[in-house]
Amino acid sequence: MKIDLNCDMGESFGLHVQGNDEEMMKYISSANIACGFHSGDPHVMRKTVELAKEYNVGIGAHPGLPDLVGFGRRKMDCTPSEMKDFITYQMGSLREFARANDVDIQHCKPHGAFYMQAMEDRKVARAILEAINDIDKNTIVFAVNNSVMLDEANKMGIPVAREGYADREHTAEGSLVMTRTSEAAEDYEAMAQRVVRMVKEKKVITHDRQDADIDVQTICIHGDTPTAPQLAKSIVSALKTAEIDVAPIRELIS
Amino acid sequence: MKIDLNCDMGESFGLHVQGNDEEMMKYISSANIACGFHSGDPHVMRKTVELAKEYNVGIGAHPGLPDLVGFGRRKMDCTPSEMKDFITYQMGSLREFARANDVDIQHCKPHGAFYMQAMEDRKVARAILEAINDIDKNTIVFAVNNSVMLDEANKMGIPVAREGYADREHTAEGSLVMTRTSEAAEDYEAMAQRVVRMVKEKKVITHDRQDADIDVQTICIHGDTPTAPQLAKSIVSALKTAEIDVAPIRELIS
Amino acid sequence: MKIDLNCDMGESFGLHVQGNDEEMMKYISSANIACGFHSGDPHVMRKTVELAKEYNVGIGAHPGLPDLVGFGRRKMDCTPSEMKDFITYQMGSLREFARANDVDIQHCKPHGAFYMQAMEDRKVARAILEAINDIDKNTIVFAVNNSVMLDEANKMGIPVAREGYADREHTAEGSLVMTRTSEAAEDYEAMAQRVVRMVKEKKVITHDRQDADIDVQTICIHGDTPTAPQLAKSIVSALKTAEIDVAPIRELIS
Amino acid sequence: MKIDLNCDMGESFGLHVQGNDEEMMKYISSANIACGFHSGDPHVMRKTVELAKEYNVGIGAHPGLPDLVGFGRRKMDCTPSEMKDFITYQMGSLREFARANDVDIQHCKPHGAFYMQAMEDRKVARAILEAINDIDKNTIVFAVNNSVMLDEANKMGIPVAREGYADREHTAEGSLVMTRTSEAAEDYEAMAQRVVRMVKEKKVITHDRQDADIDVQTICIHGDTPTAPQLAKSIVSALKTAEIDVAPIRELIS
Repeated sequence: MKIDLNCDMGESFGLHVQGNDEEMMKYISSANIACGFHSGDPHVMRKTVELAKEYNVGIGAHPGLPDLVGFGRRKMDCTPSEMKDFITYQMGSLREFARANDVDIQHCKPHGAFYMQAMEDRKVARAILEAINDIDKNTIVFAVNNSVMLDEANKMGIPVAREGYADREHTAEGSLVMTRTSEAAEDYEAMAQRVVRMVKEKKVITHDRQDADIDVQTICIHGDTPTAPQLAKSIVSALKTAEIDVAPIRELIS
Repeated sequence: MKIDLNCDMGESFGLHVQGNDEEMMKYISSANIACGFHSGDPHVMRKTVELAKEYNVGIGAHPGLPDLVGFGRRKMDCTPSEMKDFITYQMGSLREFARANDVDIQHCKPHGAFYMQAMEDRKVARAILEAINDIDKNTIVFAVNNSVMLDEANKMGIPVAREGYADREHTAEGSLVMTRTSEAAEDYEAMAQRVVRMVKEKKVITHDRQDADIDVQTICIHGDTPTAPQLAKSIVSALKTAEIDVAPIRELIS
Repeated sequence: MKIDLNCDMGESFGLHVQGNDEEMMKYISSANIACGFHSGDPHVMRKTVELAKEYNVGIGAHPGLPDLVGFGRRKMDCTPSEMKDFITYQMGSLREFARANDVDIQHCKPHGAFYMQAMEDRKVARAILEAINDIDKNTIVFAVNNSVMLDEANKMGIPVAREGYADREHTAEGSLVMTRTSEAAEDYEAMAQRVVRMVKEKKVITHDRQDADIDVQTICIHGDTPTAPQLAKSIVSALKTAEIDVAPIRELIS
Repeated sequence: MKIDLNCDMGESFGLHVQGNDEEMMKYISSANIACGFHSGDPHVMRKTVELAKEYNVGIGAHPGLPDLVGFGRRKMDCTPSEMKDFITYQMGSLREFARANDVDIQHCKPHGAFYMQAMEDRKVARAILEAINDIDKNTIVFAVNNSVMLDEANKMGIPVAREGYADREHTAEGSLVMTRTSEAAEDYEAMAQRVVRMVKEKKVITHDRQDADIDVQTICIHGDTPTAPQLAKSIVSALKTAEIDVAPIRELIS
């Protein structure tokens, strides 16, 4: 039994340090690396790719909307063609750093408002998938359950990883409640057990206290809190106890 | 007998149109495509790559310093490591657009102040060459005669194209006088004949009226004047008359 | 009888020249000057302010959304508080260039998608008006008829200029049809007569061929076509013939 | 006996938090507020101005070179005219936030490489001073001893504050050794006593262990270390014990 743990990485920018990438790399198996549009810069990208390689973590592009001040969290009314070009540009820049280290891109997970727009808007989803497909049919794309992205990826035959969240609530349909529940954010052991149950029993207690089915191949851990490494450590430890291997998404999806 | 004609392309930005790319593509054999740091944007890059492919023009990266307002013409005091990352990031973003069109990058010619710093500063030259070498040992780099870039490329065994200018004056050593001579810019026939003589006799009349040796494999034509296509047309016509083929630099250097 | 003629100015960026500002300044009475977010840069702003002063043209801020590649034409999902800060920042930067030339800001007209969002979204309109009101209660804001911006400005007691368009179609309610009608764009004399009729009879033939009431104090002429100065010249000439003075909006609204 | 304590403030950017502004405001008397070119953004600027007002701290512009990734620390080869426009643009944007809070700008201290270039290059110094002088002859400019900036400000009759550093070493001429001495950075009491001695005796032990004269009106404390508030607190406490008042630079220079 295997699960992938992913985390947004390389979101520092210039002198501004964001998150604790080196510590998180010890626990995760797939890194979503920012590509300079919402955060990240060429120097941060190089270092993050080197770090991911050092820890045998799968390298993924984490392309954002072009909005540094808004950290890519503000929806923008771009055309699908513009969206497609944003993906190509950012995947290319990251892939070059990967190739310089003799590795390649494993997956792509758009960031913030870009990800939200891709989950809800079929044209955006298709644009992103076409951009990926034009270059490399094997790049795995991340999507939440019941999203148009998941639907379109399946139609196009692009490998797609269904994603659950360690530190967010889920709905009965397996999709997400994005509001962060700060209380929940404290109880690492409970979150770790939720992850174990999602993997082992394919079940999760939803935000409105129902017991729902869920089927995910990768679990996202947010790295932008000071205590994120502790959460990651708790999850990895609980998974080990439950005899579940943590592995890059490539090993779960072919 | 062959010569490559290169021109800076894809320097439009958003709504701002720069140069007449489609017209110039008809005459040149290698395009130096801006990558978004000094000008160009993801949409312009895609269109320019498609245009280059359509006209069988060799695709080159034209990476600049990160200075949109200054159009990459202001020297910046960056470390060699930063310079290297600038090259990797920009080459990667362009390569992805090329790969989406089933072509690859033929050459790299840094832009403006970046090119000047690479010609004069051995550390900058090495940084650029290392960035290229880390990815693809066959990418041809452009350099002017008597530059440290040419010297270092030869030392590192990286293929390098010596570049002359159709519309700039040369020194007796074969390097450049960058000030634009506006009078000279009018006489296309004279410029075309200068190009023919550079290729055929390997001779050029310098800015101070000497007859000097010059040995170049690619000739740069500046595309940022409204009459640039006329100059390009005159050069192509004069070369044809002299039975010199215009060909992408890849066909001259292996 | 008086009318104000306004035009977007200072939308060049770095080396990229946009429009023919010097020529347009001869005909208009109020300049909407870009402030660096959608286009314009500190050097362009300085020159444009100097030019406006030279031609006795009223200086207005033309703040945009922070989107250089999209030229501020893509709607962004920003909070009203963020919108307010965008206005303050950009008005301040322009005001400083004005003050360095011993003039001040006469008016404010948000740009592109920012203007559209302000016309439709009451929270955006209020944010912009509050930003203006916090600094100078006399700054005139531009708005189209039947917009929430007009409504809110009246409620807040902020001076507001109702705006018509020389080169766009109007609805029966006096608001705009933003699609550019390219055929119409050719017939300068017809457009000039439409402007005269809007001013003199307060009437306009709408996009769907009705004869509607319209009451505007400023007419926008788009400056981003090569022939814009000819259109402006035709309008000024027709207004003169009709004995209507062209004057900065400050002279029409107190 | 009075001294001004200044600190760089408002250098957060979007989601990226830099320094502990609220804590530092309790101790300092003048805030150098970033204006968006090297860091800071419209939202951060508004909050920082509000915070400075709340703590009765003098508001200063801290304009940088346009280089977000480099945090304004890389020298750029700009013309004096470009430099002047950078100052005007940034001072204006900050002044508008100040005016929205019924305060005005007290001083200007360029940031990082911009400050360094102003200290060494007479043309840059003059450009900055002219930009300030065009708007407000009372704005106090900061300069280190023996700098061309100090010299030019005196020639132009612009009020200038000589600046010493709490956490940097000085030369016998009163100027600075910019390399941070990490060991020294730990001993707050020693640094506080150095500040007291600079103010009271106008003496400082230099980096090479000489006892030198120094005459400064404002002391800079760097805020970008987690323990900066402790250093500030130690300095304020030592000054109080020595019966030296901490006051905004406006109270020391008229």
